[in-house]
Amino acid sequence: MREVAVLGIGQTKIDEHWDKSLRELAGDAVLAAMHDAGVQSADALFVGNMMSGSANHQQHLGAYIADWVGLRFREAMHIESACSSGSAAFRSALMAVASGAVEVAIAAGVEKMTDSPGDEITAELATAADQDWEASQGLSFVALNALIMRRYLHEYGWQKDDFANFSINAHANGAHNPFARFQEPISEAAYKKAAMIADPINLLDASPMGDGAAAAVLVPAAHIQGMHGARIIKVVGSASATDAIAVHSRRDPLWLRAAEQSAKQVYSQAGIGPEDIDLFEAHDAFTIMAALSLEACGFAPRGQGPRLALDGEIRPTGRIPIATRGGLKARGHPVGATGMYQIIEVVQQLRGEATGTQVENPIYGMAQNIGGSGSNIVAHILKAE
Amino acid sequence: MREVAVLGIGQTKIDEHWDKSLRELAGDAVLAAMHDAGVQSADALFVGNMMSGSANHQQHLGAYIADWVGLRFREAMHIESACSSGSAAFRSALMAVASGAVEVAIAAGVEKMTDSPGDEITAELATAADQDWEASQGLSFVALNALIMRRYLHEYGWQKDDFANFSINAHANGAHNPFARFQEPISEAAYKKAAMIADPINLLDASPMGDGAAAAVLVPAAHIQGMHGARIIKVVGSASATDAIAVHSRRDPLWLRAAEQSAKQVYSQAGIGPEDIDLFEAHDAFTIMAALSLEACGFAPRGQGPRLALDGEIRPTGRIPIATRGGLKARGHPVGATGMYQIIEVVQQLRGEATGTQVENPIYGMAQNIGGSGSNIVAHILKAE
Repeated sequence: MREVAVLGIGQTKIDEHWDKSLRELAGDAVLAAMHDAGVQSADALFVGNMMSGSANHQQHLGAYIADWVGLRFREAMHIESACSSGSAAFRSALMAVASGAVEVAIAAGVEKMTDSPGDEITAELATAADQDWEASQGLSFVALNALIMRRYLHEYGWQKDDFANFSINAHANGAHNPFARFQEPISEAAYKKAAMIADPINLLDASPMGDGAAAAVLVPAAHIQGMHGARIIKVVGSASATDAIAVHSRRDPLWLRAAEQSAKQVYSQAGIGPEDIDLFEAHDAFTIMAALSLEACGFAPRGQGPRLALDGEIRPTGRIPIATRGGLKARGHPVGATGMYQIIEVVQQLRGEATGTQVENPIYGMAQNIGGSGSNIVAHILKAE
Repeated sequence: MREVAVLGIGQTKIDEHWDKSLRELAGDAVLAAMHDAGVQSADALFVGNMMSGSANHQQHLGAYIADWVGLRFREAMHIESACSSGSAAFRSALMAVASGAVEVAIAAGVEKMTDSPGDEITAELATAADQDWEASQGLSFVALNALIMRRYLHEYGWQKDDFANFSINAHANGAHNPFARFQEPISEAAYKKAAMIADPINLLDASPMGDGAAAAVLVPAAHIQGMHGARIIKVVGSASATDAIAVHSRRDPLWLRAAEQSAKQVYSQAGIGPEDIDLFEAHDAFTIMAALSLEACGFAPRGQGPRLALDGEIRPTGRIPIATRGGLKARGHPVGATGMYQIIEVVQQLRGEATGTQVENPIYGMAQNIGGSGSNIVAHILKAE
């Protein structure tokens, strides 16, 4: 396999983009990434999206977006793995370049959620769960996560408010990110009085939906060695793993086995361990998921994820910074785009462009994107050289 | 890139499978392919599907099907490019093995369409067209193809009945395929009196929807050299190209440029030309598409596709056999699965297992899968060694 580097990145602000169509939204990110990379074209486009077929009545996003951004006649396809669709598209683009099949690939993630009424979106999101045994029984994603979080509190003796710093850190970081949906810090008092959605998950434990798109240009690393002195951001680890789609089928619902497995694979590929990771873009769709993800990836012992938040170790100055540009919680969670936002935020950090929340001289950045309630997890490690 | 071979294939009959859930249907094909290949597991699963999110309220098909077939914890993702989703999944699996990222990959296509009422399916199929400029104006796929066919008749002076043999050949071949939706030959008289759907497309110009799944196991060719004397079926060409998603955006709506481009690429990769292809699984969703596909791939001069049908050259004994196991017309067209049916039918021919419609000693077989009205086209050439 050839070594692959990320040459350019682009993104839109996550918002309610009533003034943009799906193709305009995706196009803005793709064209920004191409501009950043200094490329006029690409050989292939891989689009991550979860729900445009139902939310926007538009499938076939590969051809649809390729046509719009001037890549008509090039290869294009759409990749879906629920909320990990974005990073699955990135992995597909990576594989296409690594295999030698193409020289320049674009990975994009896009989701336009706010066109649908709230009840429809809740049902559409639930298509990422097991329709027969979860969704059709009325289990929404917030309900699934509430069940997991309640069990976690019971097993490990934490209080619900011990999760506050996950949300506070995300919002503090998002305040410096002009692309974040929410750019205001929140206080611990605000967290404590936030409205309960599905006990024990309150409004500030949960990430907001939104419309957004993010994209990256991938090329063989050998092609840009020595290019105008800029740091080369290489992809040194990429792995994907699944777990039972229904939470009740897992022997241990408090352990993200697919996260553990994909993390072990990327550490092995990169020849490093969790102690070498300088920042970690975790999938904090709910605060409980941030905790479970930190544990499964080896950053905290089992049941001790919240300790890192309580001790400030997840801040940009801490041992393992997470949500450095706001995370899903404050930057926002346009589901099929989220994985690509994570990737480009890692790139921003490794380039030293994370204004306001820059981690000090990072070498290795990791992103981990979760589909469903832990049933499809895609991990990447990027390295600045 | 490593050379890749198809080690096993599996399929279900295309039918109204009211007695099977989406996962059971897909699982039957995947498990059959694993059994045929003699493998107990796989490293990765790539699932082609177009509309399960709306038709079956189930997305996340990678994890969903991996879990069901005993591949829990393995990599899995879902690929969508409208009616070319199946072959796009095959291409993704190919890339994963060719790159060295995985050793054993399964490509599957599945679509369960008959759970939805007919009017809903028509709208869901139209999400493969341009929602803003085609579908929302009331253009269904049969209407789009009728506009193209009408223009074709006008430009090249053919009569509508000159297309009869595309349908007659498909049904004659399907009669020998136990997995085909329709297993009865049809007469020219039946074609001529078939009900008009969207003039000039009648019922026997159009392929039927259905529920179906097909799958293949891919491995590095080097791993099976010399294995128990069986022929090795190598993938010697794989390419994908897009065109404008809306037909009105194309300068020439009667020329499938993405078909031409992907065909040229696979010929070049295989080091052969159209004259070397022994059978061609064309995407005969409508008879007009079979004609356009034959022309764009170099099997007939522009405007002369119907001549091959009139002269009997598309039959199993002809110059360029198409729809050898029934094609989309008689075998059926469960949209996201169709590309995988085409691939495994090429494998059946190259293995000499196409009972009743076996082409004589084929070496090269080609499959071409069309998404939308020619806006995403994936081509493969397989070779028997």
